[in-house]
Amino acid sequence: MSELRKDYLLNKYVVVATDRAKRPDQFASSEPHNEKPEVDFFALGNETMTPNEKGRLGDNPWRMRWFENKFPITTLKHVEGLDVNPQTHNDFYTFANAFGVHEVVVETNDDRQIYDLEIHELVDLLKVYSTRVKELSCVENIKYVQVFKNHGPKAGCSVWHSHSQIVAFNILPPAILDEEAFAKKFMERTGLNPFDEIIKRERNSSREIVYDGKTFTFCPYASEFPFEAKIFPLRNVINICDLDDSEIGSLAKSMKIVLNKLKEVNVPFNIFFRNGLEYQRFYVDIAPRPNIWAGFELSTGIIVNPVPPEDAARFYKGE
Amino acid sequence: MSELRKDYLLNKYVVVATDRAKRPDQFASSEPHNEKPEVDFFALGNETMTPNEKGRLGDNPWRMRWFENKFPITTLKHVEGLDVNPQTHNDFYTFANAFGVHEVVVETNDDRQIYDLEIHELVDLLKVYSTRVKELSCVENIKYVQVFKNHGPKAGCSVWHSHSQIVAFNILPPAILDEEAFAKKFMERTGLNPFDEIIKRERNSSREIVYDGKTFTFCPYASEFPFEAKIFPLRNVINICDLDDSEIGSLAKSMKIVLNKLKEVNVPFNIFFRNGLEYQRFYVDIAPRPNIWAGFELSTGIIVNPVPPEDAARFYKGE
Repeated sequence: MSELRKDYLLNKYVVVATDRAKRPDQFASSEPHNEKPEVDFFALGNETMTPNEKGRLGDNPWRMRWFENKFPITTLKHVEGLDVNPQTHNDFYTFANAFGVHEVVVETNDDRQIYDLEIHELVDLLKVYSTRVKELSCVENIKYVQVFKNHGPKAGCSVWHSHSQIVAFNILPPAILDEEAFAKKFMERTGLNPFDEIIKRERNSSREIVYDGKTFTFCPYASEFPFEAKIFPLRNVINICDLDDSEIGSLAKSMKIVLNKLKEVNVPFNIFFRNGLEYQRFYVDIAPRPNIWAGFELSTGIIVNPVPPEDAARFYKGE
Repeated sequence: MSELRKDYLLNKYVVVATDRAKRPDQFASSEPHNEKPEVDFFALGNETMTPNEKGRLGDNPWRMRWFENKFPITTLKHVEGLDVNPQTHNDFYTFANAFGVHEVVVETNDDRQIYDLEIHELVDLLKVYSTRVKELSCVENIKYVQVFKNHGPKAGCSVWHSHSQIVAFNILPPAILDEEAFAKKFMERTGLNPFDEIIKRERNSSREIVYDGKTFTFCPYASEFPFEAKIFPLRNVINICDLDDSEIGSLAKSMKIVLNKLKEVNVPFNIFFRNGLEYQRFYVDIAPRPNIWAGFELSTGIIVNPVPPEDAARFYKGE
């Protein structure tokens, strides 16, 4: 039996293909993470092998450090013929400089991966993200700052040493504009905050993972990724910079619960730290990537998810 | 240098990362296609190993045959508690039966892959698609029929024997609704057909691959996939069923030009056959999959493409 489910807000559909359902250990990948390279450019002692450092936590030794990505998606260079703001020529050609800043955050000075970090280290990491987002948001012409993490080659990761990435850029990303529009529409129609309402409905549901009075962690009803987990702050916080210490602590604890389990099954994953603009709440989205989106997903926009989120929540709760 | 480019119509952006540009042979994959299995379920003589046959071309031996997918995304089964039409409970839970038909088309009775087929065989294949789409569109409650092809594990293909898939289902897919909306908007604003206008602009551009008076093949300005190629009919044909014989012949010839080159570099790929509803033209989209969408793409919706479409067009033209 397969069930078609729509996202809470967006016009996005998922087929939860329960007939194809797999147990978590069946997702264990033979190629879960990149191999440790002979030379680890991000290691302690190899600081000269990275582009210029922009900051660090701790010293002798540093605990985390960040610098510009050697292969940046966006740069601050001004390019002849390309404006910072998109312009359209001849009706169909809209283009701009891919303007911005692309940074790498090395999460640890040793061989551990993000799921090995202690909760207080995850707190540090979240605070680094927050500081970087705040600073990069102030750069002229920057419209949005995206923080994300790739773990494992099947999640698009190419460097073994545990790290995250931050990209600041000159347009509002379509995915965020979409969520903003639907959140706004819901608010205008009902007078209620959609994120509060989703928490209200999912609290104590079969998709709840953990609720601790500061954040709510759950597997979304129409999860696009097998074992996807989202963490919503309970307070209407729009940007990671606006989280208070108790919320960051709660977020780190909830992330640790999810990451511990992902380590157990050795699956590749992405993490997205989604800042809103005005109507959308900040949230964390943990997206395991054991499978590949094929022709059906890419042509229709309908995603096939072989794992019902109710099973995923049980997995995270150790049931 | 990187350039941000917007789709002709949609609010979708691509970063053409020219700094990261790679030559086609650098995309040659060490794992380009699935390995030939010990038992080939789709082979001549193994007809009893597939679900019930729904049709074939030729006999003794058959040349192509189609049957229901053994692991279908959609089925005709009515499921207790799930309606064919989506219904919403408690504001946020919208669900339906994943209702429809999922078929497999075996493209050849031998060991060849789709890029090895002769043009007259591609013509046959397109006519099989067309017949299946026509028939499945008439099934009650079917709203859309998607034809697609996956080649290679990195494109989501799990069966070595050359085959395509057809999924008929009970909702209008978000990706199609999106293109329809933008095509309609353009038409209402300008009184012109957007697809005619795109062809007019791209004809003789550095992104043209081939124009033969019936179809136009080119690398889209904001290609999401490295070496992406689209084939537009010149006439305003909305559905694959409405192509005439000369258009099908032209389409097969153009597909062969693109597929020959993809065989050369041994890259995984998808092919989407996109039917429109009212405002969107039918087209073929050939999407190579050498890379993986990672955290940046999945969180922002902005796609990084390391191959400028102008380079891709030169590659297809053998320049």
